[in-house]
Amino acid sequence: MSTEINLRVLLKSRPKGFPTEDDFDVVESTIPQPQQGEILLQSLWLSLDPYMRGRMNDAKSYAPSVNIGDPMVGGSVAKVIESRSPVFKPGDIVEGRFGWQSYALSNGLDVRKVDESLAPLQTAVGVLGMPGLTAYFGFLDVCDPTPGDTVVVSAASGAVGQIVGQIAKIMGCKVIGTAGSEAKVSFIVNELGFDAGINYKNTNVGESLDELCPEGIDVYFDNVGGIVTDSVMDRINTGARIAICGQISQYNLESPDMAPRNLGILTRSQAKMQGFLVFAYESRYDEGITRMASWIKEGKLKYKEDVVVGLRNAPRAFIGMLNGENFGKTLVKVSE
Amino acid sequence: MSTEINLRVLLKSRPKGFPTEDDFDVVESTIPQPQQGEILLQSLWLSLDPYMRGRMNDAKSYAPSVNIGDPMVGGSVAKVIESRSPVFKPGDIVEGRFGWQSYALSNGLDVRKVDESLAPLQTAVGVLGMPGLTAYFGFLDVCDPTPGDTVVVSAASGAVGQIVGQIAKIMGCKVIGTAGSEAKVSFIVNELGFDAGINYKNTNVGESLDELCPEGIDVYFDNVGGIVTDSVMDRINTGARIAICGQISQYNLESPDMAPRNLGILTRSQAKMQGFLVFAYESRYDEGITRMASWIKEGKLKYKEDVVVGLRNAPRAFIGMLNGENFGKTLVKVSE
Repeated sequence: MSTEINLRVLLKSRPKGFPTEDDFDVVESTIPQPQQGEILLQSLWLSLDPYMRGRMNDAKSYAPSVNIGDPMVGGSVAKVIESRSPVFKPGDIVEGRFGWQSYALSNGLDVRKVDESLAPLQTAVGVLGMPGLTAYFGFLDVCDPTPGDTVVVSAASGAVGQIVGQIAKIMGCKVIGTAGSEAKVSFIVNELGFDAGINYKNTNVGESLDELCPEGIDVYFDNVGGIVTDSVMDRINTGARIAICGQISQYNLESPDMAPRNLGILTRSQAKMQGFLVFAYESRYDEGITRMASWIKEGKLKYKEDVVVGLRNAPRAFIGMLNGENFGKTLVKVSE
Repeated sequence: MSTEINLRVLLKSRPKGFPTEDDFDVVESTIPQPQQGEILLQSLWLSLDPYMRGRMNDAKSYAPSVNIGDPMVGGSVAKVIESRSPVFKPGDIVEGRFGWQSYALSNGLDVRKVDESLAPLQTAVGVLGMPGLTAYFGFLDVCDPTPGDTVVVSAASGAVGQIVGQIAKIMGCKVIGTAGSEAKVSFIVNELGFDAGINYKNTNVGESLDELCPEGIDVYFDNVGGIVTDSVMDRINTGARIAICGQISQYNLESPDMAPRNLGILTRSQAKMQGFLVFAYESRYDEGITRMASWIKEGKLKYKEDVVVGLRNAPRAFIGMLNGENFGKTLVKVSE
């Protein structure tokens, strides 16, 4: 084994508002031993995702909270080091929810073998994993796009947004992305082929949308919420489809953000707004992975990663991501 | 002809906030003469509906505003008095958008002959007209109900809400209605067969919902918006369907109502919120009318009307309806 200890990042306290590094405990443990039926995994890549912020709270959600003192939850790509399961053998590369730790035990449930021939391993928690599948099913299934549709994507250079926008282009849509820096806007337009981008931090989003979408907005894929979403809602077309994937602008507020009520827009536009979780599409994951892998091979689908090396740096990278400091899919390289 | 003059209610000024009677002009005109292809109609029943408030504004919507000095728009049941059209003959009873006036000309476009054998004539602008069809398609199509679903309907004794709740019962759902008086709550439960009702004016809606829907809410048919809707949203189940039919609590505000942002609920509940207009279902109106007429004949579908006599009283009745003073579908009996 490449290290002698199991480095683990535990939830130390429930944050009020933005998490700080003090809300996490980085501890060194011994490497656990697999029991009959279990596998011992060494984490290679840990995915950092906005949903994890919700797990730090003690509030009702679609998944349980992390208990204080437990390792933070998270999806990883890992290597099987030792197997007492008939399903896995040492050397297998797998993907699953192994938490923020360098070694983990698993009973094999919800563990997926990674096809190493498709793309680099870390894509199994990126474009060919949860974030990519979220983009794929959220856009194609929830937003029901038609060629020629005007599509707006928020957090457009992020793990999900970058994939949504590129799939929208593949589908023949016009795509406008919102992002939080000039570099991100330039990237989605010049590298990913979006039709336009809006830096929501230094422009009036509504005025920019008026200019860029004179024909209105047919599809909105929302990762952020807040005033970006308000501005889009004011400009949706009849029959618009709005996927509520995330609301990252709201995750770290100490008191609720107040906004003008605007549900009447849905009525007069005969529009649909739908929240979704990728897990609902589990039976179709293979379809999504196969199709996106072929788009990657054809050069139609690119992905940008923001890699941090070393699990000790995960808390800082996670907090930075919540602040929009990441540029692309946030990943922690845990070991070689 | 039964009267010598054409009484008309014109829009005099655009209201700020709640309309007052001063925003309307009641004028006496001569009865117009039909040209070739036209019919002269005498209004029998005028429907008063919340959507008309939006037409008094000069704002973008799905239908044009009423111009100052023009008759208020509205659906009526009318009798053909004189016909220079091959399609209609004197004595025909028709339904269409003939405005707030005792006589009107029409070229026959969007005029529907009323089947007098189905139910009393005024149902052609009530349960067997726009409000009933709104309930029928909005509930069955947008809300996609399943037997056993817990359904909440706001403005439950109103023209649309009363029909939604009864159709929900026919479909085997559990139905809770919200309304603004004890009499209305008693009516929907004791006369219409709702499982329960909540008087939103004198109870905490959230606490009442906790008590009445311990298993959560699967379907919400919203006519009102505001805090009733907030309370429902906090209690929706996974896969909930929410139809945004109207937002009457918001129509007369001088400045926007502010509310906590809550779109994250849609994501974690994988819920759908959809706005709709009944006009989208025009090709299926016959289905809705036939089916609801048979439910009426079987005694499964009742309807309550709030009738005002005389067109001069329409402005006051309309303002009262916006205030929730009506009890049932608001109708003006224009002439015998």
